[in-house]
Amino acid sequence: MPVNLPLPQADNLKPVAGVELGWAEAGIRKANRKDVLVVRVAEGSTVAGVFTRNRFCAAPVQVCREHLAAAKGIRALVINTGNANAGTGHLGLANARATCDAVAAKLHITTDQVLPFSTGVILEQLPVDRLVAALPAAIASAKPDNWLAAAESIMTTDTQPKAASRTVQIDGKTVTLTGISKGAGMIRPNMATMLGFIATDAAVAQPVLQALVSHAADHSFNSITIDGDTSTNDSFVLIATGKSGAAVVDRAEGPAFEALREAVTGLAQELAQMIVRDGEGATKLMTIRVEGGKDVAECRQIAYAVAHSPLVKTAFYASDPNLGRILAAVGYAGVDDLDVDRVNLWLDDVWVARDGGRNPDYLEEDGQRVMKQAEITVRIALGRGNAEATVWTCDLSHDYVSINADYRS
Amino acid sequence: MPVNLPLPQADNLKPVAGVELGWAEAGIRKANRKDVLVVRVAEGSTVAGVFTRNRFCAAPVQVCREHLAAAKGIRALVINTGNANAGTGHLGLANARATCDAVAAKLHITTDQVLPFSTGVILEQLPVDRLVAALPAAIASAKPDNWLAAAESIMTTDTQPKAASRTVQIDGKTVTLTGISKGAGMIRPNMATMLGFIATDAAVAQPVLQALVSHAADHSFNSITIDGDTSTNDSFVLIATGKSGAAVVDRAEGPAFEALREAVTGLAQELAQMIVRDGEGATKLMTIRVEGGKDVAECRQIAYAVAHSPLVKTAFYASDPNLGRILAAVGYAGVDDLDVDRVNLWLDDVWVARDGGRNPDYLEEDGQRVMKQAEITVRIALGRGNAEATVWTCDLSHDYVSINADYRS
Repeated sequence: MPVNLPLPQADNLKPVAGVELGWAEAGIRKANRKDVLVVRVAEGSTVAGVFTRNRFCAAPVQVCREHLAAAKGIRALVINTGNANAGTGHLGLANARATCDAVAAKLHITTDQVLPFSTGVILEQLPVDRLVAALPAAIASAKPDNWLAAAESIMTTDTQPKAASRTVQIDGKTVTLTGISKGAGMIRPNMATMLGFIATDAAVAQPVLQALVSHAADHSFNSITIDGDTSTNDSFVLIATGKSGAAVVDRAEGPAFEALREAVTGLAQELAQMIVRDGEGATKLMTIRVEGGKDVAECRQIAYAVAHSPLVKTAFYASDPNLGRILAAVGYAGVDDLDVDRVNLWLDDVWVARDGGRNPDYLEEDGQRVMKQAEITVRIALGRGNAEATVWTCDLSHDYVSINADYRS
Repeated sequence: MPVNLPLPQADNLKPVAGVELGWAEAGIRKANRKDVLVVRVAEGSTVAGVFTRNRFCAAPVQVCREHLAAAKGIRALVINTGNANAGTGHLGLANARATCDAVAAKLHITTDQVLPFSTGVILEQLPVDRLVAALPAAIASAKPDNWLAAAESIMTTDTQPKAASRTVQIDGKTVTLTGISKGAGMIRPNMATMLGFIATDAAVAQPVLQALVSHAADHSFNSITIDGDTSTNDSFVLIATGKSGAAVVDRAEGPAFEALREAVTGLAQELAQMIVRDGEGATKLMTIRVEGGKDVAECRQIAYAVAHSPLVKTAFYASDPNLGRILAAVGYAGVDDLDVDRVNLWLDDVWVARDGGRNPDYLEEDGQRVMKQAEITVRIALGRGNAEATVWTCDLSHDYVSINADYRS
C-alpha cells in the first residue's frame, strides 16, 4: 500500500502545448500491457537531462548522451518497459540506435533527434522487432491530453501511475509544467529503474535548461533512496517547448529563472516523493533533514547514512523510537571531525537528543506518538555551519524482503 | 539458525598462560544471566587494541584509549553486557572510570591498568552499583580454562558463544592463541556491538603488537558486514603474555613476526566469520572477493557495495541468481574510471559475467546450483591491477526484519 499517494486524475494533468504522448502494447515482456510510450516534442523545443552515474550504464543512456551532445534539436522520446537493454554490449547499443532510427523514419526527423529510454530486465537483449512493430500504434495515438496513460505506460512494479501538474506565472504569462515518473525500488531484479520526465511550455535556452534540470535533480530524484541501489538506467529529462508565449529564459538568474526553477524543482520533488511513497514494501515516508553542516556534501552524507541504515529503517517500520540507531548512523557517516556534543535530534516537533545525548526532557511516549505516523520528519542539527540538505526515504518492511526475494521464484 | 557454526567445545579451547577469566551475574539488564566478565592479565604482558571509528563512541571506548595511551601495563579487562554506556555524556565517562577504579582496588593495581568494555542499551546510564557489586564473584571465579564461559558471558543477541584456539611454532616453541567474539548485528536496538578478544602466550613488543592487531582487524573484523551499521562500542583487543618462553617478537618483520601475524589474523578471521555466521536472520555466508583492482581501497569499496546491497542480499536469501544486481552494485560503488568491459564475475566456479556482459556459456541452472549452497564465494575481477580484498557478509531475510522491527514491541 503506497503511503498517502492518491491516484492521479486525468482532469488534473494539464496538457503542455507542443507535447503529444502516445502508447502501444508491444508485448516486450508481457502481453496486453502498455509498454511503449512515444513523446512527440514540437520543433524549437529545448531538452536537457541527467542520467545514472552507474558505470554499468545502459545502452539507451549512452545513446541519450550522444544525441543530446549532437544538439540537433530533440523531437521525440521513445520509452519501453519490460527490458532495460543494460549489460547488453554492442548489440544492445545497436538495438537502441535501431529503435531511434525507426522512430525517426516514421516522424521524418533524424535519428539523433530521438532519445531512447528502457526499463526492465537486465542482461537480456531488447526484442527490438516487437518494439518497432508497435511504434505506428503509439504514434497514431499521440495527443496532448494523454499524460495519465503515459504515466501508466512506463510503470513496471509501481503499484500506481505517478503524474502531476502545476502552473507558474512568468512575464505575466501562465506557464504550465506536467511530469510523470516511475520507480519503486532503485533496481528490481528484472524490472528496474527510476525515470522522470517533465515538460513545460516555457521557453528556455539550452544551457539554462541544463542548469534547471541539474538543480531539480539534485533536490528531488537525487535526494531519494529506497534501498541505496542505483539503477543502470536512471534518467530525468526536462522539455521546454516555448509555446506559452512567455519570453525566453536565457540566463540562469533573475526572477523568471528563479520562478521557473522553483516550479520545476517543486514538481520534480513531488514526482520523486511519489516514488518513495510507492517504495517496495513502504509503509512510511521519512524526510531526513540535516542542518547546521559545514557544507551540503556532509549534510547529504549524514542524511544518506541515516536513510540507508537498515536498523533505522526497520525501527520506523516497527514504529519504535530507537534513538540510538539514528545517532549511531550520524556517528559512522564518515564526517571525521564531527563534534557529537553539538548534535541535536528531533522527530517532528519532539526534541529527542540534546548536545549529543538523550534530552533529559524527552519522554518515550512522545517519540512513540510521532513514530506511529505515516509521515515523519527526522531533523538533525550538527551545530557546525549553515549548510543543509534533505533526503526522502521509506521504511524497510517484511514486504520489501518478500518482493525482492520472491520475485522470480 | 547460524550458518555452519558448531558449538565450541570447552576441551578445544586452550588456556593461555598468564590469562585468567571469571564471570558473574550482575543483573545489569536481566537477572540470572552471565553479564560481567573479568579477564586478569599477568604482569609484563603487552596489550593493544583497535576501536570503533563511530564519532558517537561509547564512554568505555574513550577510557580504553586513555588507559592504553598511559602505557602503565594493562593488567585486567572488565566487560559488561546489557548496557553499552554510549550516548551517556560525562556521567557515562565517570561510570566507566568508577568501574575501572573498583577492579583496580580489588586487584591492587592502578585504574589505568584496567580496560573497560560495555555492550547493550544505548542512551541509558550504566547501573554501576550492580556492576561493582558483582566484581568479587567474577574475580573469585577467574581461572585459565574458563574461555567457554567467558564467551558465553559476553553474548547479547548472539544465538551461541563464539570462541576458537590455535597454536603456532615460533623459535621452536609452541605458542598458543585463544580468542572469543560476540556480535550478531553491527548494532542492535538495545543490545549492540562487536567485541573480539585474543590472548597469546607469545612475547610481543608493544609497537609490534599494535601492528599485529591492526593488520588482523583489517583482514577480519573490519572485513565483515551484516547490515552496514557500525556500533558505538566495537572493540578488538590482543593480549600477549610472553609466558610461552618464545623469544620476544620485537620487530614487525621476519619469520617469527610473519608466523604470529598469520596465526593472529587467521584466528581473528575465524572469530569474525563466526559473527557473520550468527548474523541476524542469516541463512547464508557469502565471501565477496574483489581482485584485479588498482589498490586495496577500491577493491574494498566495491566489495562493500556488493555486500551492503539489500537487493544482492535478498537475492542470496531467495537463492535467486540475479546477476544484474551484483553488476549494478559494482557499477555504482563509486570507482569513477572503472571500465566495465573488463569486469568478470564468478559464483564459486561458475563464470557468470564475462567482459562486462552475460557470459555466453553461462547457464542459469549452474548459477542456481551455487546459489542454493549455504556458503558462496562471489569473485569479481576488475582487470585493472593486482590489488585484492575480501569481505564476508550474510543474506537479508525475513528474520532480519522481524528481529530488528519486533525487538522492543
